[in-house]
Amino acid sequence: MADHIVTSYDTDLENLRRSISEMGGIAEKMVTEATDALVRRDSALAQSVILADKRLDAIQHDIEERSVLLIARRQPLAIDLRETISAIRVSGDLERIGDLAKNVAKRVVAISDQPVGQKIILGVQHMSDLAEAQLKDVLDAYASRDVKAAHDVWERDGEIDALYNSLFRELLTYMMEDPRNISFCTHLLFCAKNVERIGDHTTNIAETIQYLVTGETPAGDRPKNDASNYATVTPGAA
Amino acid sequence: MADHIVTSYDTDLENLRRSISEMGGIAEKMVTEATDALVRRDSALAQSVILADKRLDAIQHDIEERSVLLIARRQPLAIDLRETISAIRVSGDLERIGDLAKNVAKRVVAISDQPVGQKIILGVQHMSDLAEAQLKDVLDAYASRDVKAAHDVWERDGEIDALYNSLFRELLTYMMEDPRNISFCTHLLFCAKNVERIGDHTTNIAETIQYLVTGETPAGDRPKNDASNYATVTPGAA
Repeated sequence: MADHIVTSYDTDLENLRRSISEMGGIAEKMVTEATDALVRRDSALAQSVILADKRLDAIQHDIEERSVLLIARRQPLAIDLRETISAIRVSGDLERIGDLAKNVAKRVVAISDQPVGQKIILGVQHMSDLAEAQLKDVLDAYASRDVKAAHDVWERDGEIDALYNSLFRELLTYMMEDPRNISFCTHLLFCAKNVERIGDHTTNIAETIQYLVTGETPAGDRPKNDASNYATVTPGAA
Repeated sequence: MADHIVTSYDTDLENLRRSISEMGGIAEKMVTEATDALVRRDSALAQSVILADKRLDAIQHDIEERSVLLIARRQPLAIDLRETISAIRVSGDLERIGDLAKNVAKRVVAISDQPVGQKIILGVQHMSDLAEAQLKDVLDAYASRDVKAAHDVWERDGEIDALYNSLFRELLTYMMEDPRNISFCTHLLFCAKNVERIGDHTTNIAETIQYLVTGETPAGDRPKNDASNYATVTPGAA
């Protein structure tokens, strides 16, 4: 009987892991497709990203509910308790990543009929490629409980921030050159900011992996490079 | 002995409530002060908002830890379980509200030496006043478990979104009029977006109150009015 309980508990945990993995797959696809939609200005693809977000929200809600019931019913200790808490945290971050990808997709619809500088969009794509790679790596690290790989992801977030800073300045300069650039550049600014935030949530997941495996969260500040909050650009100075 | 356990459990819940209330007070103050700092372009006040965020993060971490231990140790059912889950959710939203206020404060520092149109800043202040009032109301509703008051807050989020939409267009027009406006208007755009997101997290708290008291989340879509994701403005058309 005790054996039966153990098995069923493991099944619960295994099911949680599977749901997180499903969420991860959807979130990754949304990030990739939102950026593809932006680069090709493909409103139909953007709409499908917007729709996919509903499924992500539903799974997250389900994971949260099942995790809490698991804690209440099974009173897990140590690693098993951390496993459940981590499932709640990671699903929360993946849900937010989906929201951010959805927001990029909405802006694709906004600028679909605008003349857009392709070079500047490629800057956003470059950031997004990096964010996608990080997200993929952190999901692999979560699946394999690999603290070392998670720490690598954690350390690399600064690269996305650095790209964002330079893109922020570039977009401002572009806006100053011609007022016709302002509308779509503003949307691109928000797209870039969303990708930068996707990187932050990926870093959160990396921290959760460390907590899951070791019971501790990373010491010291994150390697943040986001100076754009403080950045200004002067017309004609570029 | 049973009596002792009950009392001590109630004490745990009461302590959780007190911590949420402390977080609420700090978050409210941060939102108010970040906007004050923006309106007066007061970098010193902005710095104190940035510092206050550390305390908020620490309490949230503590609430999360205590809530999970409470669930694991006491196996609460029904209302008591919802009480603990709600504490985790509300503290998460308050932590995010603090982050958003901190981001506004950082941008105050960025534009502190820039010539800024005071009229356009007042638009952000107007939005922020509304967001502050909503936050205050939702915290009161949480303290008194008042579903009706929470629902009122939930319904009013559309007003903040509507203000944000009109401010978004106004800021774009302002940027098109003079490239010297672009740098600080971009920061104001992000400030306004942050305030709009503060409204979203306030709405999340309103939903949590309904879940806490009734066990159900509000049916139907939120009264969202945020069309700015889809908005563009053409130079000379204003």
